[in-house]
Amino acid sequence: MENFTIYNPVKVHFGAGVVEQLGAVIAPIHRKVLLVYGQGAIRKNGVYDLVMQQLHDAGCEVWEYGGIKSNPIIEDVDAAAELGRHNGVGVVLAVGGGSVIDSVKIIAAAIVAQCSAWDLVSRKTKPTGALPVVTVLTLAATGTEMNPFAVVQNQQLGIKTSFSSPYSFPVHSFLDPAFTLSVPSHYTGYGIADLMAHVMEAWFGKGDSPLADKIVVSILQEAMEAGPQLMGHLQDYNLRARVMYAATLALNGTTMHGRLHGDWGVHAAGHVLSLLYGVPHGASLTIVYPTWLRLMKDRETLRVQKLLGHLFQTTDIEDGIQKLEGFFKSINCPVRLGELNLPATAPAEIVDQMIRNRVSGMHHQLSSEDYRTLVSLME
Amino acid sequence: MENFTIYNPVKVHFGAGVVEQLGAVIAPIHRKVLLVYGQGAIRKNGVYDLVMQQLHDAGCEVWEYGGIKSNPIIEDVDAAAELGRHNGVGVVLAVGGGSVIDSVKIIAAAIVAQCSAWDLVSRKTKPTGALPVVTVLTLAATGTEMNPFAVVQNQQLGIKTSFSSPYSFPVHSFLDPAFTLSVPSHYTGYGIADLMAHVMEAWFGKGDSPLADKIVVSILQEAMEAGPQLMGHLQDYNLRARVMYAATLALNGTTMHGRLHGDWGVHAAGHVLSLLYGVPHGASLTIVYPTWLRLMKDRETLRVQKLLGHLFQTTDIEDGIQKLEGFFKSINCPVRLGELNLPATAPAEIVDQMIRNRVSGMHHQLSSEDYRTLVSLME
Repeated sequence: MENFTIYNPVKVHFGAGVVEQLGAVIAPIHRKVLLVYGQGAIRKNGVYDLVMQQLHDAGCEVWEYGGIKSNPIIEDVDAAAELGRHNGVGVVLAVGGGSVIDSVKIIAAAIVAQCSAWDLVSRKTKPTGALPVVTVLTLAATGTEMNPFAVVQNQQLGIKTSFSSPYSFPVHSFLDPAFTLSVPSHYTGYGIADLMAHVMEAWFGKGDSPLADKIVVSILQEAMEAGPQLMGHLQDYNLRARVMYAATLALNGTTMHGRLHGDWGVHAAGHVLSLLYGVPHGASLTIVYPTWLRLMKDRETLRVQKLLGHLFQTTDIEDGIQKLEGFFKSINCPVRLGELNLPATAPAEIVDQMIRNRVSGMHHQLSSEDYRTLVSLME
Repeated sequence: MENFTIYNPVKVHFGAGVVEQLGAVIAPIHRKVLLVYGQGAIRKNGVYDLVMQQLHDAGCEVWEYGGIKSNPIIEDVDAAAELGRHNGVGVVLAVGGGSVIDSVKIIAAAIVAQCSAWDLVSRKTKPTGALPVVTVLTLAATGTEMNPFAVVQNQQLGIKTSFSSPYSFPVHSFLDPAFTLSVPSHYTGYGIADLMAHVMEAWFGKGDSPLADKIVVSILQEAMEAGPQLMGHLQDYNLRARVMYAATLALNGTTMHGRLHGDWGVHAAGHVLSLLYGVPHGASLTIVYPTWLRLMKDRETLRVQKLLGHLFQTTDIEDGIQKLEGFFKSINCPVRLGELNLPATAPAEIVDQMIRNRVSGMHHQLSSEDYRTLVSLME
């Protein structure tokens, strides 16, 4: 095992009705609130009204910034930060999925740093603090509700990149599985795929940690047990709860104990698909992971074999990868570029963008030759 | 799944050499330090010198309280609190195993509350705060290094009881597996048994949580893989690290996510053996757990069967319990009272003390008739 640090101060309030505590939690922090949300789903499913009622009853003054995109862009982050800064808010409340919460982490740091958000993300300016962040999660997928990480894209520069700081843990996260009951089938599947990809990035990271490995397998097995059941019963609270908790545990640090770092090469490759064609994050991962495993089967044979063996009781790697593809299909996720309706030029464009972004894992380096192999395997 | 809260702000520094950061961590908190330790093992294995060097180099002033017993008593807690209070210390540093860290949590609260420690433990006085607690762990077992719980005994009243408060999380815990290399074989085995008992108390608690169940099994499997290897190679750093991390994860809240509470009936029964005859905590658990499982096999058949099935690939409960006993024996732990050299009156005394202490689980109630059954099964 490698030396490691465990530290995660997020207070997670999990379960039915937990948002009834939102006002009581926010008011003592600050009564001037910047509320950030996405494309308006929360106005349809009632979550917006519940949250506003809480803030109103707690005597909070609220400024709203809606319209965060599902692959969030830096322009929205800057505009929201300016709104909050101008009005002297003291707490930033994210109501939404990963894109909204990720954006809010950068907004909260940019308000304090008084600089453009891209200066923080590009590491030109080092964050010195952040406003307290509170989140209300409406999509089980990224795990951002219990970690300090964020991903944002800069369309102009053609970069999708990550941000984190010691100040970027949410203070409180409210996770009511009932708030995800209205998530449509496809996005439910993408979320399951996303959480699975997170723990696989840990599995293929640097450093032997046998118990963390067992937890990776536990989370994968949980996703593969509850996930398909949920796809057939989207209104089942308990199945929503199981997937929501699995997604949180998948990226709150637990799978990294005893390792130096994860790999994240598959995420880096997937980001290229999102950046070029707006492919939903989870869908990009289900296309890249099987191909990446085929690329790695001769380099990391034992690790690939061991993981697939745990999941599918097979010692044959190709058989295991096909079973993984079969699982992804069973939760409505694509496994080939051909399913996405992309232009005929897509494969070459993807390789070019991978070269420009120097796509690679932290543990398993990828070369230009690898990009071509990966993309040809995706076709 | 039940509603639950995740909150654990302890910063764990895990690995070889982490104590080199101790001075840099403590000095910004406060430079007047109350150092608490046990029966002097740390003076023999060099840990005391390392810690004192760190405190000295960081310019700290240190008051020492040594001699905490392995089943800690309230008189020591009071005496140490008085020493700290009198000298105006601002941080309490525990260097030792569970007994020392548990004591320090109560000491840190008693210094602030300015009352007798028993007033806090008996809930006569509610803690309103605590001095910051830092720990250096020297025994992998109880998990206290990453939770707010403590256990202490009052010999005079014949009670061994628990304490916790929102202020009783250590701020920092330093876990260097090398500091446990000198732990003798028996106590190494007790530690492994203790961590296993902790996750079993979660398994038999109230509330269905499939992923938390998988993590319980993962921790048990890790202990049963690394534990016996460690018993044969007490000087192996990596095996010490695996057991140390498993013990921390076993009681830092993770196994309780999605449950209302654990059971803790086996711990309550084990405490009686420690109180009456000074039986080491881990040894008391390996005697009680198999007998408790035999008591529960008709009441909680499916849960007992499922757990033993995961661990020993058997559907026969008695076969599984015997295999669990075999495992405990393989790590030098007793499974019958007869191995402890107790007086002939012990069985009756244990039943009487169980009645006086109203020994029970939080989920599975125990009656006087159950006490007699349990004790007869232990003989």
